[in-house]
Amino acid sequence: MSTMKPIKVGLLGIGTVGVGVWEVLGRNQEEITRRAGRGIVIARVADKDTERAKKVTGGKVAVTGDANEVVTDPNIDIVIELIGGYGVARDLVLKAIANGKHVVTANKALLATHGNEIFAAAQKAGVMVAFEAAVAGGIPIIKALREGLTANRIEWIAGIINGTSNFILSTMRDKGLSFAEVLAQAQKLGYAEADPTFDIEGIDAAHKLTIMSAIAFGIPMQFDRAYTEGISRLTREDIRYAEELGYRIKLLGITKRSRVGDVDGIELRVHPTLIPAKRLIANVEGVMNAVLVNGDAVGATLYYGAGAGSLPTASAVVADLVDITRLHTADPEHRVPHLAFQPDQLAAIRILPMDEVTTSYYLRMRVVDRPGVLADITRILADGQISIDAMVQKEPSEGEEQVDIIMLTHATPEKAINAAITRIEGLPVVTGTVTRIRLEELK
Amino acid sequence: MSTMKPIKVGLLGIGTVGVGVWEVLGRNQEEITRRAGRGIVIARVADKDTERAKKVTGGKVAVTGDANEVVTDPNIDIVIELIGGYGVARDLVLKAIANGKHVVTANKALLATHGNEIFAAAQKAGVMVAFEAAVAGGIPIIKALREGLTANRIEWIAGIINGTSNFILSTMRDKGLSFAEVLAQAQKLGYAEADPTFDIEGIDAAHKLTIMSAIAFGIPMQFDRAYTEGISRLTREDIRYAEELGYRIKLLGITKRSRVGDVDGIELRVHPTLIPAKRLIANVEGVMNAVLVNGDAVGATLYYGAGAGSLPTASAVVADLVDITRLHTADPEHRVPHLAFQPDQLAAIRILPMDEVTTSYYLRMRVVDRPGVLADITRILADGQISIDAMVQKEPSEGEEQVDIIMLTHATPEKAINAAITRIEGLPVVTGTVTRIRLEELK
Repeated sequence: MSTMKPIKVGLLGIGTVGVGVWEVLGRNQEEITRRAGRGIVIARVADKDTERAKKVTGGKVAVTGDANEVVTDPNIDIVIELIGGYGVARDLVLKAIANGKHVVTANKALLATHGNEIFAAAQKAGVMVAFEAAVAGGIPIIKALREGLTANRIEWIAGIINGTSNFILSTMRDKGLSFAEVLAQAQKLGYAEADPTFDIEGIDAAHKLTIMSAIAFGIPMQFDRAYTEGISRLTREDIRYAEELGYRIKLLGITKRSRVGDVDGIELRVHPTLIPAKRLIANVEGVMNAVLVNGDAVGATLYYGAGAGSLPTASAVVADLVDITRLHTADPEHRVPHLAFQPDQLAAIRILPMDEVTTSYYLRMRVVDRPGVLADITRILADGQISIDAMVQKEPSEGEEQVDIIMLTHATPEKAINAAITRIEGLPVVTGTVTRIRLEELK
Repeated sequence: MSTMKPIKVGLLGIGTVGVGVWEVLGRNQEEITRRAGRGIVIARVADKDTERAKKVTGGKVAVTGDANEVVTDPNIDIVIELIGGYGVARDLVLKAIANGKHVVTANKALLATHGNEIFAAAQKAGVMVAFEAAVAGGIPIIKALREGLTANRIEWIAGIINGTSNFILSTMRDKGLSFAEVLAQAQKLGYAEADPTFDIEGIDAAHKLTIMSAIAFGIPMQFDRAYTEGISRLTREDIRYAEELGYRIKLLGITKRSRVGDVDGIELRVHPTLIPAKRLIANVEGVMNAVLVNGDAVGATLYYGAGAGSLPTASAVVADLVDITRLHTADPEHRVPHLAFQPDQLAAIRILPMDEVTTSYYLRMRVVDRPGVLADITRILADGQISIDAMVQKEPSEGEEQVDIIMLTHATPEKAINAAITRIEGLPVVTGTVTRIRLEELK
């Protein structure tokens, strides 16, 4: 056993994940010490609810209601930020860095919006900022992108990185229920919050995608450029039609190298996506997460596991503690950089606006069942240089005059599909709006 | 860009993987340098076929036929060993270490059999030995086990870690062909070697499993204790019957914590295994690899990708080069240890002999279709305390007197099932031998 003193950790926020960190460090203490080469102990805890914090920690550690005391405590080596949000968390992280502490955080919102500032400060202070827990919970995807796949030019990443949405979509498909019905069920089970906006509208996924994109391509965090579309408007009919065509609908975060003309660009987008049912990632069900990474040397690799929850997230936080313990003695100029690329080596590549993105589409429209309708629609698509890969026209129900037409297109610029949809919706034989869902083969 | 001199690499063996390493370092040079903080260049190449080596490297690097020159060259910082085998490779790796070189190797056979000696030598010399490419090709599974999941007590690992076998099993199922037919096809496609023994008899998988087991549980490499059973005796009928019962047959490497009485043990076994068809890992097809890791905090995580091939394997080799470049300045006592656990912290836990392993079983037997037969068989199982989970008796074909009976058992010690099988095979109404395949739920 090492004779070195244990490394001392200050924990900010002992809620769901914080309790997990406390528990994991406690019960696996012996193995973690064997692995890290020295002990790792939580020496101080800050939480607004000091009573609860004291109960959880059983009086074994100093508890304070003021997180400022922890980030300035000269005895603390590493600060874990589990407060969440942008305001207080940002101030505390910057203060910890200014005081020479290494930082571990699970706060994706903070990193996606203030990451550039935080990493610059950490670089200047010569400390490490680790954030494995910020993306896909317990899956070591940050480590894979930043270290495991360093040999590769990453081509694209596609991830199921929001468990709530995936639970809703899986259950809608399994049970043939509507979005509203399953959301209510998810809220009852604790898989969705009372205000589910962040999860179901793709914002949480976009935070995580922004972080992965920065690491994969060596670019600054640019959350404000991410395109975000959620799952709240998906119907059970679309899920069923997709199934009939051999596809599943998943909320994917996709980031991809893309060239428009001869200028390099990067796509950064979260939206419901049809993917072939036979792909491994199409079979990721319930609250589980999975990230598919395509590198030029390795090809496709996939990482699967629990994307949230107390212990899985704690697994990632504690792995970061061990990493820092193992590596903080390395020359700061050479040890693993926060963003995979050395800080003076970030590239300025443009994030493509959605209009310039090219992908395939699933289109569903309701039309009057009358001769010539299909000719009108296919004419509009042909005018827009949009070619059709597959088409299904449903039989009208008994006594119905209207039918659903479903089309899958080949790759088409988003601008062209939008223009075509506007023209199709203007046809008098078309009822209501055209449903448009993007489709990716993920090959 | 860093002003530091590039790190200098000596490459031993420029065959399939070596060419991949040369190619990846060349074409992704700029990105790799951005990530590593300094350049990484192959400064010297050793290969018996110097003409071929010169052709591949285009005269851009010194080529020698004598690997000893490279491992003793004072200008070389890191040696990549891609020679393979146990004899020469072992000598060269030890000599490189003795000369203060860091070592990167893809040689699973060498590590599984001489790893303990090599890691001890590296520890003494204060150099790093990295071997991501030795297990599951381009999948960063060593990094996941050694770093990504350090917070966990690993409970078990189950992996598809031999692409040749998985290709054969996938194709047998897809096309309803026999083992011999598919093996011949695999040999034609270059997926199986002329002498396929290492792949199809599970030896290659056992090498990789031995390495993962050592890292996961903090134990020395103990390849000689691994149980190994290949796929050459599997029939298309067993694959079809398994399918009918909701299972797929995969060649799995399984390592697991297990208690017999009140003594801790570790299972280390490679064999064909029935697994539920709905598990993600059951849907890994063709030559692809996947490793499922179960940790007490994170739960189940899965890692999927190409397990072999020039560029995927090179991806892992070059990631190791970047890791060493980033980390070799860290204090040797604290940086990531070769085996996840610090070298003085390896545990002496017994590898269980197969007789003491408990698992479920698929049994297939051919019996005369006559009253009382089933009673005789179930009596024998009951005597052995073996309980039946599911049973199928096939209808006899027209004019046939014999039928297949398939049974799935609940968890049973291997010793008990073996004894029961011997008794069943002794029944006059049972024809030939009983087919026995292990079954794991992987939950």
